[in-house]
Amino acid sequence: MSKKTANDTASDLSDATPGQRGPADHERREQILSVADDLFKAHGFRKTSVTDIAREIGVSSAYLYRFFNSKQAIGEAVCARALSSMDNAIRAVAERDQPATQRLRDMLQTLLEEALRLFLRERRMHDIIVVSIENQWSVTEEHNRVVYETIEKIVADGRDSGEFERKTPLDEVCTAIRVTAAAYAHPVLLSRLGDPEEMETKLTAVTNLILRSLAP
Amino acid sequence: MSKKTANDTASDLSDATPGQRGPADHERREQILSVADDLFKAHGFRKTSVTDIAREIGVSSAYLYRFFNSKQAIGEAVCARALSSMDNAIRAVAERDQPATQRLRDMLQTLLEEALRLFLRERRMHDIIVVSIENQWSVTEEHNRVVYETIEKIVADGRDSGEFERKTPLDEVCTAIRVTAAAYAHPVLLSRLGDPEEMETKLTAVTNLILRSLAP
Repeated sequence: MSKKTANDTASDLSDATPGQRGPADHERREQILSVADDLFKAHGFRKTSVTDIAREIGVSSAYLYRFFNSKQAIGEAVCARALSSMDNAIRAVAERDQPATQRLRDMLQTLLEEALRLFLRERRMHDIIVVSIENQWSVTEEHNRVVYETIEKIVADGRDSGEFERKTPLDEVCTAIRVTAAAYAHPVLLSRLGDPEEMETKLTAVTNLILRSLAP
Repeated sequence: MSKKTANDTASDLSDATPGQRGPADHERREQILSVADDLFKAHGFRKTSVTDIAREIGVSSAYLYRFFNSKQAIGEAVCARALSSMDNAIRAVAERDQPATQRLRDMLQTLLEEALRLFLRERRMHDIIVVSIENQWSVTEEHNRVVYETIEKIVADGRDSGEFERKTPLDEVCTAIRVTAAAYAHPVLLSRLGDPEEMETKLTAVTNLILRSLAP
């Protein structure tokens, strides 16, 4: 977050009365999540307290609780934010003016790269993932919808262009690719696929399998 | 474990001197794992202590430590035992005298059924899975090998019989199916696939995708 934005937010907040939510509140939320994300990555989710986050920003913990009810709420919002950055990246691939085959390959590769960037640190899983699994956080619904719709757009385009077969029901094909795509983006699975080179070999094999299944 | 075996084991052990390991020790190990498995399932891995396991068998904790160095060692052995029962089930399917297509379907279905039986309790993950992920237990190596070899046998048979295509390198095809098969057997992924009916629909779609990819 830029200096300017942080200053604006601070001056806006000095005037704010509880209950009033404006653009400044939105910016402050983003700042909290950005600082929390950095601290979670550096020290782990479990070892970071709300007090640590407040201290880093230069506000009180009580002030942070006006935005988030608990550390878990901050953790869930950090995860949702990371997933939405992944969503934007794959949406951009789906919109490209390229053959569907190429877009499907690139979309799966993007899922992999984003997952590695977001959730694995030095090939160890970010501990927020373990906590989210254990407590069954449900921040992935919107993300699942976007992944499904992205696959659906590319497969439908590939059917129109004659690149892909049309006999199997579209929703069955998209569901199967969606479930299979978990291999590229789920940190628990990724962390088991071996070193980066092995991971690449295995996932290229899966991509080729998916594309063979789509052959007309 | 039968009454008879438990008695035999106890009497054998009264004669045993440290360092001597015979069939009785093997049986005692199995008894410990069986009791531990039941307690982990009933109360959770985290809430079960070595003392609880010893008390249930009617021996001292010190005695248990002659067989396993730590609760974690018991946990890892319980997981390995569960995976080996899964391995036996899929091996049996691969050996059947049936078309490869049918065996591949049945093998994947068996993976699913065994995973549900072993790792999910009332659709919640057994907490031993969370602990094993967090601590990166490596009990799955033998299991991964068996799953790969089972897939390889079925795919090779299907190539011989003309059911499956032969252009793609065999190891590439088997690697891709192996990675995809994680969707059927990984408790973290399974717990996200929805209710049993949804799970069935989604995994049938994946099985059909794999079979389409194998079409000659």
